[in-house]
Amino acid sequence: MDQKIKRNVIVGQAGGPTASINSSLAGVYHAARNLGYKRIYGMLHGIQGLLENRYIDLADHLKTGLDLELLERTPSTYLGSCRYTLPEISEDKDLYERIFATLDEMEIDVFVYIGGNDSMDTIRKLSDYAIITGSKIRFVGSPKTIDNDIMHTDHAPGFGSAAKYIATSVKEVIRDGWCLEISKGKVIVIEIMGRDAGWLTGSAALARGEDCEGPDAIYLPEVPFSVDAFLAKCKERLIHKNCVVICVSEGIRTEDGKYVSELANPDSFTDAQGYRQLTGTARYLSGIAAKEIGCKARAVEFSTLQRSAAHCASRTDIEEAFECGAASVKAADDGDSGVVSVMIRTSDDPYKITTEIKDVHKIANEVRLVPREWINETGDYVKDEFIRYVRPLIQGHLDPITVDGIPSHLYVPGFHDLL
Amino acid sequence: MDQKIKRNVIVGQAGGPTASINSSLAGVYHAARNLGYKRIYGMLHGIQGLLENRYIDLADHLKTGLDLELLERTPSTYLGSCRYTLPEISEDKDLYERIFATLDEMEIDVFVYIGGNDSMDTIRKLSDYAIITGSKIRFVGSPKTIDNDIMHTDHAPGFGSAAKYIATSVKEVIRDGWCLEISKGKVIVIEIMGRDAGWLTGSAALARGEDCEGPDAIYLPEVPFSVDAFLAKCKERLIHKNCVVICVSEGIRTEDGKYVSELANPDSFTDAQGYRQLTGTARYLSGIAAKEIGCKARAVEFSTLQRSAAHCASRTDIEEAFECGAASVKAADDGDSGVVSVMIRTSDDPYKITTEIKDVHKIANEVRLVPREWINETGDYVKDEFIRYVRPLIQGHLDPITVDGIPSHLYVPGFHDLL
Repeated sequence: MDQKIKRNVIVGQAGGPTASINSSLAGVYHAARNLGYKRIYGMLHGIQGLLENRYIDLADHLKTGLDLELLERTPSTYLGSCRYTLPEISEDKDLYERIFATLDEMEIDVFVYIGGNDSMDTIRKLSDYAIITGSKIRFVGSPKTIDNDIMHTDHAPGFGSAAKYIATSVKEVIRDGWCLEISKGKVIVIEIMGRDAGWLTGSAALARGEDCEGPDAIYLPEVPFSVDAFLAKCKERLIHKNCVVICVSEGIRTEDGKYVSELANPDSFTDAQGYRQLTGTARYLSGIAAKEIGCKARAVEFSTLQRSAAHCASRTDIEEAFECGAASVKAADDGDSGVVSVMIRTSDDPYKITTEIKDVHKIANEVRLVPREWINETGDYVKDEFIRYVRPLIQGHLDPITVDGIPSHLYVPGFHDLL
Repeated sequence: MDQKIKRNVIVGQAGGPTASINSSLAGVYHAARNLGYKRIYGMLHGIQGLLENRYIDLADHLKTGLDLELLERTPSTYLGSCRYTLPEISEDKDLYERIFATLDEMEIDVFVYIGGNDSMDTIRKLSDYAIITGSKIRFVGSPKTIDNDIMHTDHAPGFGSAAKYIATSVKEVIRDGWCLEISKGKVIVIEIMGRDAGWLTGSAALARGEDCEGPDAIYLPEVPFSVDAFLAKCKERLIHKNCVVICVSEGIRTEDGKYVSELANPDSFTDAQGYRQLTGTARYLSGIAAKEIGCKARAVEFSTLQRSAAHCASRTDIEEAFECGAASVKAADDGDSGVVSVMIRTSDDPYKITTEIKDVHKIANEVRLVPREWINETGDYVKDEFIRYVRPLIQGHLDPITVDGIPSHLYVPGFHDLL
């Protein structure tokens, strides 16, 4: 780092929330303070808010160490999020000029974006533009996604807490399901997030242990799904037990590439980013099981809780998210731009992680799937390799700061109100 | 209690599971041991299992204090449950004779049943039969229900933990919901258990605090539901904020007595006990909101987690459940039969509870609803009286005993297998 006076940092959060994305924000703030930056701004609702000059000075809100501690335990995005894909530079140079004029006016040295693959693409474009125009602003990314589909990092912050919530809740659903004996048995289908990657759904296998046999089958989007095989599995398991629990990813597709959720909702809509709404997979499959097998059936969706249930967060995840946030600022402070902080696993047992910096061009817009060899041959369960990989990421618990019997969150007053 | 030698106790669990029903079982076991009973048997799957001579000697499984501690933290029913309505004595005297012959053969002095209103009815019938036939066996009930609809007790064990889970999760869904700004806004409808009584749904109001404004509306089954009023509420709230969160009971009915879930599923089925399956209320209402308002909408169901999420249990509830279990055995030991242990609140602040014994005839088959005066005039929120009543019941947390990153449960091996 050159010895010039340090000016300001701006940080934003983008994409879907996680239980630990605010811990990365705390890491960014903590590192930027320690490295001597003057002001640390937070964009409200990511770059979309920045384009409307909506931001706060974080020092106005993070006044004590306790505030920072509470921030680490607050789910969802403290600053608000956005799903905004920057156009290519060639498509809208004016927009880039506007962004950089704002950043210059705010005397920004470092721009940190905490997000998933789309957000890393934002860092790629902005850092490219800085190179083209000779801007000295450094652009760095801090990864987060419950989906764990970011390349070139051992895993992504946010995944471990979601996996812990899923494993815990699947175990509780299994425990609940068996207790009533029902003639002809019962099938429970649990739907778990994950459009293309089955990391979250596979984590349901962590429910298995000495005191729980785990789900009866786990279907990931990496393997084509067969409704017939699913029914055969249910029937076979119902010979042995009264309540069969099947976990499916919302993104499972049949051999011909059709989402199972499309079979359920032929008229499902597609959102602004071109993503088809995936919902109803479990409902569809439990309905088929009830009809074809004549058993009782129930669909369970973990819904947004799997990404926001901070009350069941992984301490490992919260700590690593903090480290990634801090490492991204440190990298920018060292003069890097167009980079992302990632985690490298140096040892499995004992579990050891170090942070490193990777070129954002290598990371953006690629999707990391569960390796086929970590899924069993019939494609209905994950193998021990998968479990060995995920197990360390759900270790430890961070007690919520409880007020009046429920977890307390850090909250910017007025954020909920429309501006 | 006469000074004769104490023989054996048998205990069963019935009805829907809760996060604290096993703590009542622990209380029964602990008290029966301390009072000097020889064997403490557990019926597998309640009275239905007893009719098939399926039971265990609990001493074979609860060997140490740690086992008992783990049992208190294990959700669902450790012994398995049943939904079995005993016929009236006049309808099937043979059945009663069979039950009493089994109990005599097992040298039972005390029969404890942990359950809800249906189970208290079982205690009523069995204790009546004992009086008629001069049997010395004492029959006592220990209450449990997440629904909190048992009469003549301040509240029911199981309710506090469910309320805590609901308040915590509603807060996390609210926190998650606001973070993405969506043009035309978003409506999230959360469906919460409760067929006739709105205690659980009302508990969503506990999410409200300094750091959270709570749900935008709460609809209980105690007040007729109007789809138009619901839509008007959504529209009005969407003027002020981007994400509106509405909590509804699965049991809400329109003015003409139709379940909203029936509007969603005109062909929904009715189970063996004559209960109509209530599901799809949130899905139906979120669909209507999307269509009529043109906003984004999402349905969230807490599903069986609200009754089995022991990882988020209320310490107050777990302790009180234990006390109720112990008090029911104590009552039988004192010579009472046909009674239920209940809780009396002697002080609100500080919160103080004592256990008492009530005649089961006063309790069985009545349903306790949320008083109309605890619901606001427009019928879309609970009043402070409701919150003051519930708040003490969700206090305190009992850390799970964690193994490999997820909560450990006590489990009888082989229970899952069909016999």
